Amino acid sequence: MDFKELVKAIQEFEGVTRKNSIDNVISLLNEAYNVSGDVVIDIGDDASAIDIGNNQVILMAADGIWGQLMNINPYWAGYCSVLVNVNDIAAMGGKPLAMVNIMSISNDEIYEQLLAGIKDGCLKFGVPMVGGHLHPDGEVDSIGVAIAGIAQKDKIITSFGAEVGDKIIVAIDLDGKPHEEFALNWDTTYDKDPELVRAQITAIQYLAENDYVKSGKDISNPGIIGTLEMLLEASEKGAIVNLEDIPRNEDVSWENWLKSYPGSGFVFTASEDKCDDIINYLKDFSIESNVVGEVTSDKSLYLVKDNEKLEVFNQNVNPVFKKAND
Amino acid sequence: MDFKELVKAIQEFEGVTRKNSIDNVISLLNEAYNVSGDVVIDIGDDASAIDIGNNQVILMAADGIWGQLMNINPYWAGYCSVLVNVNDIAAMGGKPLAMVNIMSISNDEIYEQLLAGIKDGCLKFGVPMVGGHLHPDGEVDSIGVAIAGIAQKDKIITSFGAEVGDKIIVAIDLDGKPHEEFALNWDTTYDKDPELVRAQITAIQYLAENDYVKSGKDISNPGIIGTLEMLLEASEKGAIVNLEDIPRNEDVSWENWLKSYPGSGFVFTASEDKCDDIINYLKDFSIESNVVGEVTSDKSLYLVKDNEKLEVFNQNVNPVFKKAND
Repeated sequence: MDFKELVKAIQEFEGVTRKNSIDNVISLLNEAYNVSGDVVIDIGDDASAIDIGNNQVILMAADGIWGQLMNINPYWAGYCSVLVNVNDIAAMGGKPLAMVNIMSISNDEIYEQLLAGIKDGCLKFGVPMVGGHLHPDGEVDSIGVAIAGIAQKDKIITSFGAEVGDKIIVAIDLDGKPHEEFALNWDTTYDKDPELVRAQITAIQYLAENDYVKSGKDISNPGIIGTLEMLLEASEKGAIVNLEDIPRNEDVSWENWLKSYPGSGFVFTASEDKCDDIINYLKDFSIESNVVGEVTSDKSLYLVKDNEKLEVFNQNVNPVFKKAND
Repeated sequence: MDFKELVKAIQEFEGVTRKNSIDNVISLLNEAYNVSGDVVIDIGDDASAIDIGNNQVILMAADGIWGQLMNINPYWAGYCSVLVNVNDIAAMGGKPLAMVNIMSISNDEIYEQLLAGIKDGCLKFGVPMVGGHLHPDGEVDSIGVAIAGIAQKDKIITSFGAEVGDKIIVAIDLDGKPHEEFALNWDTTYDKDPELVRAQITAIQYLAENDYVKSGKDISNPGIIGTLEMLLEASEKGAIVNLEDIPRNEDVSWENWLKSYPGSGFVFTASEDKCDDIINYLKDFSIESNVVGEVTSDKSLYLVKDNEKLEVFNQNVNPVFKKAND
């Protein structure tokens, strides 16, 4: 695949295009978003933050699991429902506290496998599932999980803090393998010791609490470049990224790598003087990171390879996150 | 309807029998329930509580909305998805912080009505909806909402605290009307001033923080007697309840009243010397309450009318909340 085709593949990737519709729920609610006056994070981050006083916030997020994942492998769907939620809290620099779930189940066998997956996810990440609601006479099988976490109010990592001149860091656990059935699930947790998996979460908390990063987001369905674009859109900035500086496990093609949902993967921006410390610190947690580019003032994300520079996203033309009211 | 038929109607009420299956999710997860060691409330309460230190707990709950409600009136389903979750936190003596939702939607019109209902619910109760996940290509329409709240760790109202000899108090806002389409929705919030609705939530917090009650639960789908039975099962106690001492709006038949889901309704147990204070305090918030009976040591809930005493629930024979492992 040549570079132009790669860029086109990222632009047309379902993980990116599908994002347009699924994140509009909240912006439609308008003034109900902060009726209490305690919500301190704007719409469009991995999690929302509610001020509870004493320089603490409660973080909340919700994630569903794609129907196709649920139908093919309910065990893995259950496991991933934990993983994606825990990573949402981690990406904010928070400590995950607990999860609740809402399930719709049409048959008992799927239900048992789903629960087994959830349970193993909880045991792996050390985060409890403390409640749930089952639609027992469901016509379809689906699962949604909500999570609460806690963080220091003045230390949370948001998607809104990227500044012009910031270095962009991509940080991914390279020690893994694509899931047998889902080639774009870069699984780095299932075979890994729970202690190390939990320490990866705590490591991001450490970066947050010690002011190492200015903004950040966990790499999810939109993949590495799509996730970075979402961060840039929240910060109203652009970027130039050097493709080959992105940490990659070379068993995976560039196309699949850029579309992958990693078990532990983040994009950060940071001032130049912090980058070495971040990179060195994360190494101890099996997370390989590298400076891949820089934040710019225009609203385009360019990818560079050799001497070619191509625009992947332009916030005026093909943003990943379209606000419902636009 | 004679008294025997009324008791039979409660026993066979769908709101009670359906409870058997929908609350089993969590007990199946076993050791994943408290993998972090911070969960301080046992399974079977309105919400779970996670210790965050400093004598504070985060409360979490999740509730879905019955499919039939969603199909007939998505606006009301959205509104109720807020109401039921806020009441879960109120019943624990907590302050609701924020909600997130997970929706599956098959058509746009339903979606808009649902969102309008959610929004009006948020504005009524003063609790923000801060995030969500939409399955946009849903084959069915469903909504689940999760809520987080906060409370003082040593002051939460649980379902586990009922003691033999406690008086049982039923407390309900009688100023309302059955919903036009759903006769068992005793609606007391929709036409009421938001300030009073929010003050009803805060009033329960006040009872909790001042040690007025020993246990409590919000009256939900299982109705007044079914909800009391769930509390008694959690506390491993029984009760004798005098039917005609239960506060009732006399426009509603006893059968419908006992099956109703009130906008603001709770069962509490308290020591005798606190009862007058509780009853007087709640009056200011449009909540009518009364001592309706007493907690006993056997595991049966008896209802008394005139000189007749009938067993409604027996924990060894027809419990409302069957644990999955039983």
